[in-house]
Amino acid sequence: MVDVIRVKDAPSRRGQECTIQGWIYRIRSGGGIVFAIVRDGTGILQATVRKGAVPPQGFQEAIGATPESSVIIRGVIAEDKRALGGYELRATDFHLVSSSPPFPVRKGQSASMLLDNRHLWLRSRELNAILKIRAAVFGSIHEYFDLEGFIETQAPSFVSGACEGGATLFKVPYFSTSVYLTQSAQLYLEALITTLGRVYTVAPSFRAERSRTRRHLTEFWHAEAEAAWYSEEDMMTTEEQLVKHVCDTVSAHNEGEFGILGVAPQHIAIELPLERVTYEEALEKAGRAGVELRWGDDLDYRAERAITAQAEQPFFVTHYPKKAKAFYHRPDPRRPETVLCHDLLAPQGYGELTTGGERIARLDVLMQRIEEAKLDPKDYDWYIDLRRYGSVPHAGFGLGIDRLVKWITRAEHIQQVVPFPRTMRRMRP
Amino acid sequence: MVDVIRVKDAPSRRGQECTIQGWIYRIRSGGGIVFAIVRDGTGILQATVRKGAVPPQGFQEAIGATPESSVIIRGVIAEDKRALGGYELRATDFHLVSSSPPFPVRKGQSASMLLDNRHLWLRSRELNAILKIRAAVFGSIHEYFDLEGFIETQAPSFVSGACEGGATLFKVPYFSTSVYLTQSAQLYLEALITTLGRVYTVAPSFRAERSRTRRHLTEFWHAEAEAAWYSEEDMMTTEEQLVKHVCDTVSAHNEGEFGILGVAPQHIAIELPLERVTYEEALEKAGRAGVELRWGDDLDYRAERAITAQAEQPFFVTHYPKKAKAFYHRPDPRRPETVLCHDLLAPQGYGELTTGGERIARLDVLMQRIEEAKLDPKDYDWYIDLRRYGSVPHAGFGLGIDRLVKWITRAEHIQQVVPFPRTMRRMRP
Repeated sequence: MVDVIRVKDAPSRRGQECTIQGWIYRIRSGGGIVFAIVRDGTGILQATVRKGAVPPQGFQEAIGATPESSVIIRGVIAEDKRALGGYELRATDFHLVSSSPPFPVRKGQSASMLLDNRHLWLRSRELNAILKIRAAVFGSIHEYFDLEGFIETQAPSFVSGACEGGATLFKVPYFSTSVYLTQSAQLYLEALITTLGRVYTVAPSFRAERSRTRRHLTEFWHAEAEAAWYSEEDMMTTEEQLVKHVCDTVSAHNEGEFGILGVAPQHIAIELPLERVTYEEALEKAGRAGVELRWGDDLDYRAERAITAQAEQPFFVTHYPKKAKAFYHRPDPRRPETVLCHDLLAPQGYGELTTGGERIARLDVLMQRIEEAKLDPKDYDWYIDLRRYGSVPHAGFGLGIDRLVKWITRAEHIQQVVPFPRTMRRMRP
Repeated sequence: MVDVIRVKDAPSRRGQECTIQGWIYRIRSGGGIVFAIVRDGTGILQATVRKGAVPPQGFQEAIGATPESSVIIRGVIAEDKRALGGYELRATDFHLVSSSPPFPVRKGQSASMLLDNRHLWLRSRELNAILKIRAAVFGSIHEYFDLEGFIETQAPSFVSGACEGGATLFKVPYFSTSVYLTQSAQLYLEALITTLGRVYTVAPSFRAERSRTRRHLTEFWHAEAEAAWYSEEDMMTTEEQLVKHVCDTVSAHNEGEFGILGVAPQHIAIELPLERVTYEEALEKAGRAGVELRWGDDLDYRAERAITAQAEQPFFVTHYPKKAKAFYHRPDPRRPETVLCHDLLAPQGYGELTTGGERIARLDVLMQRIEEAKLDPKDYDWYIDLRRYGSVPHAGFGLGIDRLVKWITRAEHIQQVVPFPRTMRRMRP
């Protein structure tokens, strides 16, 4: 038996006989030789199958192999400058495991057709590259938080209160009652900092989102962090360092994938500190770009697109009006009509990556904001308790991981960067 | 300004003046000196506050400080063999940030009271220790898969088909239709191996579980993996290596936390390979322990408890009857009334940690099993496609992370090891 190896390890096996298992990516034959390009999840490798060099049965199977068929090929790894990647497998045997009929999806089909066949279209080199960058993004998020002393934790998906307004909550029948699906772990993370100090979580969040923009999903992956004793500025530093760490990591480790996507990752070579722009400055910017908003309006999708279109680096928008934001944000002591809350926006129209800020630590201020927001304090009893028993100043943020991947890969639509995206109209496959 | 440090870094700051921020864990005073034990998420440290060594206002605040109050203490780090941890902070200033009224929860209260006040009870040293071990478990799962070349990915939480029977599915109203909450990423991971080869995911799964055993939750964290070209035996090796890696990592890195729990982690010093026991042998074992099952019955909670009670190491149960298991398991070619499916059971009554096996790769066999199981092939059209276009032998498994943490920490009830557990009757806090 010869060793079974993965394509990425081929260069280290030069001159050795090995076995590769994978799928036919491309194949052509002529003059007693078959050129099969094989992919196995770690890369692609050309195999040359010569009549006479493999048993007759193997050659017949190679001649008959179609794209996307699964195969096991034994052969000797050789350097070949003409081959993609510089190496090829000179076959000594070829085994067709499962023959594929003509593959029904290909580049250039409609976005909707490709999404209907997502389970097959995942095999495209483009999606393979995006999914590898996505994996690197997840890995580097964990790595950053670990380095900074944040402890990984988990908040419940089933919640009984609403964190950010009820309109976009999914309600789930739950035995004899009902619960909601979480939109954010924030309130739970605020409880967890009282025991762990600095915490983070990576988990799905849910939004019954009717809008059909290029950046909304009904379920999305959310990295959220919260830290005791952090000011808003401390947390903005954490956010920009996290984004930079992710960008630097994928730039360094995913060169091949960026190449496949035809994306030069210069757009994610960010320099810290990122610019801080106040809400008022953002309003003016939006106005100059033709999007008129009144003081007090939240920055919507159009406004975000307008103010980020010409930017080259992500930047923060700070000092949002109190009335545009949720009850838990700490009012700015110097300008109490605004809150210590910010968004981090990606440039070139990509828009919101993170949203964060300092939370209210004082019991009286929190009670007043809950009243102003016309919420029922009973729904927040345990959250209010956190201000009763040794409250501390603290801040946190949430990062939309799918949006970050979208910006990093310069994808046009967020559905492109999620293995099986979910929107109002799409629940399958 | 002196440096703000975290308790865990105190030993490296011996002789230096530093600031610690945290909560009062215990406090006593007398004779012009206050001994305050402070916790900050990274550890606990004794601070001694002497009258005259701090400003009068600071001493008054120290005298009045109650347990769970939040404090900022400046002082010099000194070695002191009598102090817990061997170091103490000799205060030069003391600031009471937020005073706590008498803390309403304490050890010895009923489990239900402690769960009602979970947001406060998280502060207990026991839960703090469990949550840190839990974080280390999550981290070491990612680490193991990364080392083995498995790529992290994500499956949807909203699914339109049922992976393991409808009775325990949560149904969610979804705009003008409805979807289910996922119980397993498996089917999606089977699609993802065709592009990535080896994949894993760490995400919540949901089960509308009516049972009130010590090990069931309505949402649980699930680590699932799938790999192309893996046999069942390959996957069992992956599972036991993963569990060993996690156990070895937490044993090495969480000594302090095991100490707090009063658990010596010898019970997780496992030796590979783990024992493989067939289903028939398991039936006999259960029978000898007084749990009578007929061939064809699945091993239920009672049976698992009986056969694991006397074990010292986790072990696999293999060769389950086809009729006891889901349609996608590959029938054993040597004994087609059984399937290449296994469970990994933790010893001492803890029971199921993982469940896995080889999946059906052949289209005709899959169609026959779907028919036998009286399922509608239309519900599985995309899953069936995976056998049409270059099918490959493959295997996978799912690990219940909360159950693994329960066994590792020797917790009595699974609710103890989850930050905010969810059961049929518990949706808050």
